[in-house]
Amino acid sequence: MTDARAILLLHCPDKQGVITDVTGFLTRNHGNIVYLDQYVDVIEQHLFMRVEWELEGFAVPREQIKAEIDRQVGERYGMDTSVFFSDVKPRMAIFVSGMSHCLYDLLARYQAGELEVEIPCIVSNHEDLRYVAEQFGIPFHVWEIAPDKSNRAEVEEAQMELMRRERVSFIVLARYMQMIGDNMIAAYPHHIINIHHSFLPAFKGARPYHQAYERGVKIIGATSHYVTRDLDAGPIIEQDVVRISHKDTPDSLVRKGRDLEKIVLSRAVSKHIDRKILTYKNRTVVFG
Amino acid sequence: MTDARAILLLHCPDKQGVITDVTGFLTRNHGNIVYLDQYVDVIEQHLFMRVEWELEGFAVPREQIKAEIDRQVGERYGMDTSVFFSDVKPRMAIFVSGMSHCLYDLLARYQAGELEVEIPCIVSNHEDLRYVAEQFGIPFHVWEIAPDKSNRAEVEEAQMELMRRERVSFIVLARYMQMIGDNMIAAYPHHIINIHHSFLPAFKGARPYHQAYERGVKIIGATSHYVTRDLDAGPIIEQDVVRISHKDTPDSLVRKGRDLEKIVLSRAVSKHIDRKILTYKNRTVVFG
Amino acid sequence: MTDARAILLLHCPDKQGVITDVTGFLTRNHGNIVYLDQYVDVIEQHLFMRVEWELEGFAVPREQIKAEIDRQVGERYGMDTSVFFSDVKPRMAIFVSGMSHCLYDLLARYQAGELEVEIPCIVSNHEDLRYVAEQFGIPFHVWEIAPDKSNRAEVEEAQMELMRRERVSFIVLARYMQMIGDNMIAAYPHHIINIHHSFLPAFKGARPYHQAYERGVKIIGATSHYVTRDLDAGPIIEQDVVRISHKDTPDSLVRKGRDLEKIVLSRAVSKHIDRKILTYKNRTVVFG
Amino acid sequence: MTDARAILLLHCPDKQGVITDVTGFLTRNHGNIVYLDQYVDVIEQHLFMRVEWELEGFAVPREQIKAEIDRQVGERYGMDTSVFFSDVKPRMAIFVSGMSHCLYDLLARYQAGELEVEIPCIVSNHEDLRYVAEQFGIPFHVWEIAPDKSNRAEVEEAQMELMRRERVSFIVLARYMQMIGDNMIAAYPHHIINIHHSFLPAFKGARPYHQAYERGVKIIGATSHYVTRDLDAGPIIEQDVVRISHKDTPDSLVRKGRDLEKIVLSRAVSKHIDRKILTYKNRTVVFG
Repeated sequence: MTDARAILLLHCPDKQGVITDVTGFLTRNHGNIVYLDQYVDVIEQHLFMRVEWELEGFAVPREQIKAEIDRQVGERYGMDTSVFFSDVKPRMAIFVSGMSHCLYDLLARYQAGELEVEIPCIVSNHEDLRYVAEQFGIPFHVWEIAPDKSNRAEVEEAQMELMRRERVSFIVLARYMQMIGDNMIAAYPHHIINIHHSFLPAFKGARPYHQAYERGVKIIGATSHYVTRDLDAGPIIEQDVVRISHKDTPDSLVRKGRDLEKIVLSRAVSKHIDRKILTYKNRTVVFG
Repeated sequence: MTDARAILLLHCPDKQGVITDVTGFLTRNHGNIVYLDQYVDVIEQHLFMRVEWELEGFAVPREQIKAEIDRQVGERYGMDTSVFFSDVKPRMAIFVSGMSHCLYDLLARYQAGELEVEIPCIVSNHEDLRYVAEQFGIPFHVWEIAPDKSNRAEVEEAQMELMRRERVSFIVLARYMQMIGDNMIAAYPHHIINIHHSFLPAFKGARPYHQAYERGVKIIGATSHYVTRDLDAGPIIEQDVVRISHKDTPDSLVRKGRDLEKIVLSRAVSKHIDRKILTYKNRTVVFG
Repeated sequence: MTDARAILLLHCPDKQGVITDVTGFLTRNHGNIVYLDQYVDVIEQHLFMRVEWELEGFAVPREQIKAEIDRQVGERYGMDTSVFFSDVKPRMAIFVSGMSHCLYDLLARYQAGELEVEIPCIVSNHEDLRYVAEQFGIPFHVWEIAPDKSNRAEVEEAQMELMRRERVSFIVLARYMQMIGDNMIAAYPHHIINIHHSFLPAFKGARPYHQAYERGVKIIGATSHYVTRDLDAGPIIEQDVVRISHKDTPDSLVRKGRDLEKIVLSRAVSKHIDRKILTYKNRTVVFG
Repeated sequence: MTDARAILLLHCPDKQGVITDVTGFLTRNHGNIVYLDQYVDVIEQHLFMRVEWELEGFAVPREQIKAEIDRQVGERYGMDTSVFFSDVKPRMAIFVSGMSHCLYDLLARYQAGELEVEIPCIVSNHEDLRYVAEQFGIPFHVWEIAPDKSNRAEVEEAQMELMRRERVSFIVLARYMQMIGDNMIAAYPHHIINIHHSFLPAFKGARPYHQAYERGVKIIGATSHYVTRDLDAGPIIEQDVVRISHKDTPDSLVRKGRDLEKIVLSRAVSKHIDRKILTYKNRTVVFG
């Protein structure tokens, strides 16, 4: 006996009957739907759907669910499907460098039970934040990157080995100040979440708060997105902004920006953990 | 040949099969669904749904749709259903007193084609804004209320006669400074939209901006809600806020509040016109 | 006898004694200060100040105030000063093309007494919005621009002649879809206010809402700025944003954007009319 | 040699000459002003001012500054003055109960150097959060309150003894779920900062998120204020809000509210530490 739920994320070209057939499959197998959200992109003629139902009493065994959905419904419509279970927590690795604000925010939420996740490891290119990891009793791994970046491939290989060993499901870059290599990105497609300290695409590249100051904008922002090979151009998950004024200096922008970054990153991480995000053509569908 | 659509709004106790049966009915009758949104209130165990489909090629004639849905699906689940057609514009009456900002905002949107609505009449208790109605060529009707309110019942009867004659579907109180009588409220249940110049329930009653000033709040708001017999306590449709500071005076709060009121009222009116609002237990479900 | 006020806007390199000397000048001449705001940009070491005082009883005659301030205080500090009087309304020209939302918003505020301004003329490159100008009884002037832009210089000359004849103090581009020539910009330095339908610098150029849609952003914005020779790069006066989602289409972004544009433009225009804006190094200081 | 600064906070009835005289006093004594903000409440005819200047080279010794300002300027105008020094950190006590989110947020900022403050102690009525205090190496003191509250006076006396011993300058109630007694309030007038989990005055009293859910509001808020004898009615320092929808449950409101509470409380605490807050007639003036 269990109160676990199954979660189905799917998308496919929009056709008559998709919703009827998906919900029909669940109803037929005695699945009590507790959440259904769907969205049709009328421009792309594409349908996105998230359904959550109780496993208790469901006629199809857990390990056959995805295969049965694909066979009975998915293949007909060319569906891309994923199935998750609420009692299987994803395993999240956090990458950091010198700034602690995003790391503390994630760990405090984790410890307070806000995030349904395991955190098997924290990775850094510096020793600076080891004390934070130790405060929370989480293993901390350091690989320094040589100034000439000559050891980058080697470090990446070691990091990926750690990810495999710890069965990491997704990676959060909590102000990690190093490039992520293509192999890592390929191994975790749309499973590496970055926080960019700017309202993308306004200020790409380095020192965006200084760019914002120079341009004299009245609002600054932060953007959380999935990492793709195209720097700062992956699918946006969440953004937020804060109003500033002529009284702000680059320093005060950095300070206000930190509060934004924490909130925006943690919202994106929560949505990912709750399996509420679908990506399509470099955009995200984020269910409520 | 037509590109008109039918819109079905429904709510009922949540049971297995509702979504399958509703979408099945439409699919069976060749209805091409272009919008479906549903929401289950897990606390109340109640389901809310909005479906929109193309009438072109739909097997059930327009005037029988509601009856067929009720017969084939609704009765089984105890559904409350309403059916609308996108090519039938609702008829909106606007009630005003002395302030023009909400009236201008609604009329400018109407003239720019933003609101799919007819405006057969504007009603007031003063002559003050007749010139605005005349700028837009809309009939303007004035009933003054005696200082002792002795003619209120009589005025209300005359107003209701006008509403009937003009086949008014819903009423917008665009800063109308008189009470609405119980007969009018009963005739237009959840079809009278008011704008309250405060973040309800923060400052009920008179002069809320002065109350906000006295209390020293840092944010003020505006609230649009359906009118019920319980003053300022009807279902809330939309709210918004603006940040203020110690530099604001009651006058500047009034000024900032006007901008909020316009926006909040027009958003609520748009949602109502688009049939995106369901009400249940004094709350609204507002679809996106 | 009068309740008019004088307004002094100044900026200069920051030095000890500026504030003491400016307020000392006013106190010595029996000027009752009703507003003083100053700001020191510590990075640029530059001071900005706005003072407002009652003219009633002030010892210096109105027409000599600027000269006396410059002579007694300004020259010593290398000040840039401007003096205005609250009973002299600025004269505002509005330029429009085909979209009415910003125009209606400005005119409704004007008619409600929200803007202390004269509006001697509305200029357009189309006949489309003549009816709006006529609703409000304001002269409407049309100069069409040839498809090959061959008559641009000629049109600009005619427009500038109108500006001179009507003694226009500043120009508002309320979604005017034509380039402003360098002569006009030179004649009205930091006195032409534009509304850009994007969160500058995020989406410059054409069709920013479509760009926003393509990029999949979660927030869109609008920006009001002074026009300089560098397109879309002049000093920013005001910005605001609204949250969007994957459900938004380019069309719905345009619709939501319109509400932003109205509000952002009218806030910028109000600040300009109230002489609360100073510009320096392509940034604005906007007093509260 | 020092780069310390002096900070003067003052308020008095508004009269001609106040600003000239205050800045004149500083200029005369070679004080280099690095920040000046002042505000005149035109309704109350009251002036508020904050000035910050460099101590290096200032002619008046640190310990005589307040007395000299009072003697040379303050007495003439009936000023209320306070003088602080940037190199003297205030000492902040944090009171908590069972919820960790505000505590973590404050301690993470403290450890990252965002708050210029000493934290000599954390006080609680439970053991629950001792582990957090220990993570950060800060002494944790527990006084349980008896169910019948019979030991409240005694506990308060012990807490006040601790405050005295630790030379606490101000107290932050980071979701402390017990009443603060009148003696404590009297000992720390406008120096106890509370976070109320609602947009005051919307939902006073217990379980405000449940009240918000019941009322069906579309926006929730949080309020930080100074504690006075009148519960939840002290001067408001900071408020913020977040948009919600019909999809939110009381649980999700609590979750969203926690993020607000953290941000709002930490902004209020920062402003207090930076001596940017003046209180007058139960309202705050918060300088930028």
